[in-house]
Amino acid sequence: MNFSHIALLTDYGTDDEFVGVLKSVILDVAPHARITDISHGVAPFDVRSGSLMLARAIQYVPKGVIIAVVDPGVGTSRRAIAIEVAGGEGILLGPDNGLLAPAVAMAGGAERAFELSNVSLHLEAPGATFAGRDIFAPVAAHLMNGGRIEDVGAQLDVDALMPGLVPLPSDVNDDAYGVGVKCEVTWVDTFGNCQLNIGADDVAHMPTALRIVLGDDVRRATIVRTYADIPAGALGLVIDSYGMLALSMDRASAAQSLGLGVTDEVRLFPYGDEADTAMTTRVGIRK
Amino acid sequence: MNFSHIALLTDYGTDDEFVGVLKSVILDVAPHARITDISHGVAPFDVRSGSLMLARAIQYVPKGVIIAVVDPGVGTSRRAIAIEVAGGEGILLGPDNGLLAPAVAMAGGAERAFELSNVSLHLEAPGATFAGRDIFAPVAAHLMNGGRIEDVGAQLDVDALMPGLVPLPSDVNDDAYGVGVKCEVTWVDTFGNCQLNIGADDVAHMPTALRIVLGDDVRRATIVRTYADIPAGALGLVIDSYGMLALSMDRASAAQSLGLGVTDEVRLFPYGDEADTAMTTRVGIRK
Amino acid sequence: MNFSHIALLTDYGTDDEFVGVLKSVILDVAPHARITDISHGVAPFDVRSGSLMLARAIQYVPKGVIIAVVDPGVGTSRRAIAIEVAGGEGILLGPDNGLLAPAVAMAGGAERAFELSNVSLHLEAPGATFAGRDIFAPVAAHLMNGGRIEDVGAQLDVDALMPGLVPLPSDVNDDAYGVGVKCEVTWVDTFGNCQLNIGADDVAHMPTALRIVLGDDVRRATIVRTYADIPAGALGLVIDSYGMLALSMDRASAAQSLGLGVTDEVRLFPYGDEADTAMTTRVGIRK
Repeated sequence: MNFSHIALLTDYGTDDEFVGVLKSVILDVAPHARITDISHGVAPFDVRSGSLMLARAIQYVPKGVIIAVVDPGVGTSRRAIAIEVAGGEGILLGPDNGLLAPAVAMAGGAERAFELSNVSLHLEAPGATFAGRDIFAPVAAHLMNGGRIEDVGAQLDVDALMPGLVPLPSDVNDDAYGVGVKCEVTWVDTFGNCQLNIGADDVAHMPTALRIVLGDDVRRATIVRTYADIPAGALGLVIDSYGMLALSMDRASAAQSLGLGVTDEVRLFPYGDEADTAMTTRVGIRK
Repeated sequence: MNFSHIALLTDYGTDDEFVGVLKSVILDVAPHARITDISHGVAPFDVRSGSLMLARAIQYVPKGVIIAVVDPGVGTSRRAIAIEVAGGEGILLGPDNGLLAPAVAMAGGAERAFELSNVSLHLEAPGATFAGRDIFAPVAAHLMNGGRIEDVGAQLDVDALMPGLVPLPSDVNDDAYGVGVKCEVTWVDTFGNCQLNIGADDVAHMPTALRIVLGDDVRRATIVRTYADIPAGALGLVIDSYGMLALSMDRASAAQSLGLGVTDEVRLFPYGDEADTAMTTRVGIRK
Repeated sequence: MNFSHIALLTDYGTDDEFVGVLKSVILDVAPHARITDISHGVAPFDVRSGSLMLARAIQYVPKGVIIAVVDPGVGTSRRAIAIEVAGGEGILLGPDNGLLAPAVAMAGGAERAFELSNVSLHLEAPGATFAGRDIFAPVAAHLMNGGRIEDVGAQLDVDALMPGLVPLPSDVNDDAYGVGVKCEVTWVDTFGNCQLNIGADDVAHMPTALRIVLGDDVRRATIVRTYADIPAGALGLVIDSYGMLALSMDRASAAQSLGLGVTDEVRLFPYGDEADTAMTTRVGIRK
């Protein structure tokens, strides 16, 4: 089987030539390749954010090859790997640092895995810091041209691959606010929406009006369907495009307004009828 | 008729996977699609700036489909629409919020319009916030594969579509500076050039040396053909690539130097011979 | 010979429609074109940085056409040129301002050069500021469709082309630190790695532990193979993906930590055994 589509996800940014060179290497060997950038805007070195982005995107990516690189350990003994999923319809290439794991799980799990140890497929390079160009791109081109996955290197035990880190919410019992759920921000998008690691189903037992506790800052937000349903200047909990709850504002950045970033803790409680002066607090938990 | 080319314009940015997922959905169904990004750098929620960008670009876009999304009302009752232009050589998809209107006018006007109400063409989704992925992309793929525009949903009266907002200049009579023209900044590009909503023809009756009044800040600028014609550190009025006048500097950002942004008012007057101390003012009208 | 691949490098950024319009013009005339963005993130007007990026990338770019535009002199009498390299396998289009020169040298030197003086190949435009759209894109499309390079305009003497500026390191003898090498930062990448204009070979006569002198700031750094080999918070000299030395940190930005930018001077000396209180200085040389 050969492939026509390849998707890319990196923390390379687009200000440098990294992405262009990686694509050039692919196209030089596999000129038929159709390349889609998932994104190159993962925060530098942020393996977890990259892994969650890839997990969100993979269900939409056409069959073929995926290269994902967020790789602080480039050049070290951490392995470069290929993981086969979905009966061979997809092959993910990347570092064995957990980056691929959540997406592989979303795609039904790893069927086979290989270490990219066959250096005859790699580009020779004067330095060890650009595995995207020297290892992942030429191996991807090999696969896109119908080259066998068995030829990329030694087969690995899929159970020995580095797992990904997906944060889970937990129940919490607060003296002031009662029983609630402790979650965290998994993603701040370009509009400032702060995705949480809970879905609408997880709070189905609560009222739609929720108390949002961010450190010393306490807010009220209602679960709504669209951004425009949030009153001007207020905070809302929107069911986002992946079915998760996101702290959002209408035409404004909730992240900026609240001082929230990825991995920040957020606690949710049912909002009662009592007066609560703390609700007017406007002190962000970050500077 | 089927299409091979599709152009995209959004305010999604490229730091998230939004654009990559939108493209993935198109390519999964219409793998022959050639995709060109006009830009995804429209300021979030800035429908007017997006509409002007699309109007500037459309004359150069190959025949085919265009998806444009700047859509604060996503998921609400605002309609998602398809507009046919140029004898069917172009179809624009986007929200019915004025975003498409100036480009449609540039392309000769809407010939037919349809609401994207045929949900059988859409992707099912757990949330209502990503119409690019769930509505516009699959409908575009349908059209690119030769699907009929009549099948995307109910036909609309083209006269009932939301118009766009294109700011017009006006004459002004100032006690100190005489008869001039009041215009505004329609676009600040990445180099800091501030495009105004007047063309060189609109000031053909004035001398090429003009007085530029920005709130309390008064400058002198001469209409020139190239950036390099502007003296170092001075302000110029360049006839830009669309034939409009742009406040510019040579190898520097006029926007930053003047504190100018989109929608800021600019007044132009003929520059006389009198001494004018105000010309040395360096107080920006923004912080 | 016609071409299927074209690579682009500009300082246009991607927030505006410049790149999308340039591509649209190419694809309208040469719909078979495969377009790869090397980068559009060159700092505005920074011809040298653009020229070095192109020189780094060109060895990986598939055969075909390259458009490179960093062009403060757009619209002036500076020439727009086409340079043929590698027995006709590559044609570079851009301004004759030195931008293309280092890449042309990397590709074996200019074989023929032409001025893009045949205006019948250009787009008519209301202004002179967007040569990418009006000159380079349509000429590229002409070449990609098999049009002859001889038809783009008058042949030029390749020896009369504007040379590029590639900074060279030099020996230095410092009263305090002895004999060393004076170099400069040629590139700060998105991770904050500061590439220097010396390769590992250039300091092969020195120990791997080096004294790094940045104005009044003196540091110690060891030459290592990977970022992960640098101790946390320390500075390292990594042999980068082009074989050059780069001032780097592990999972942090050396540029930000040191206050370093492109063209900043860096001096390297062998690191001896003596005590040196200056090594603890943490005063950046930039604010």
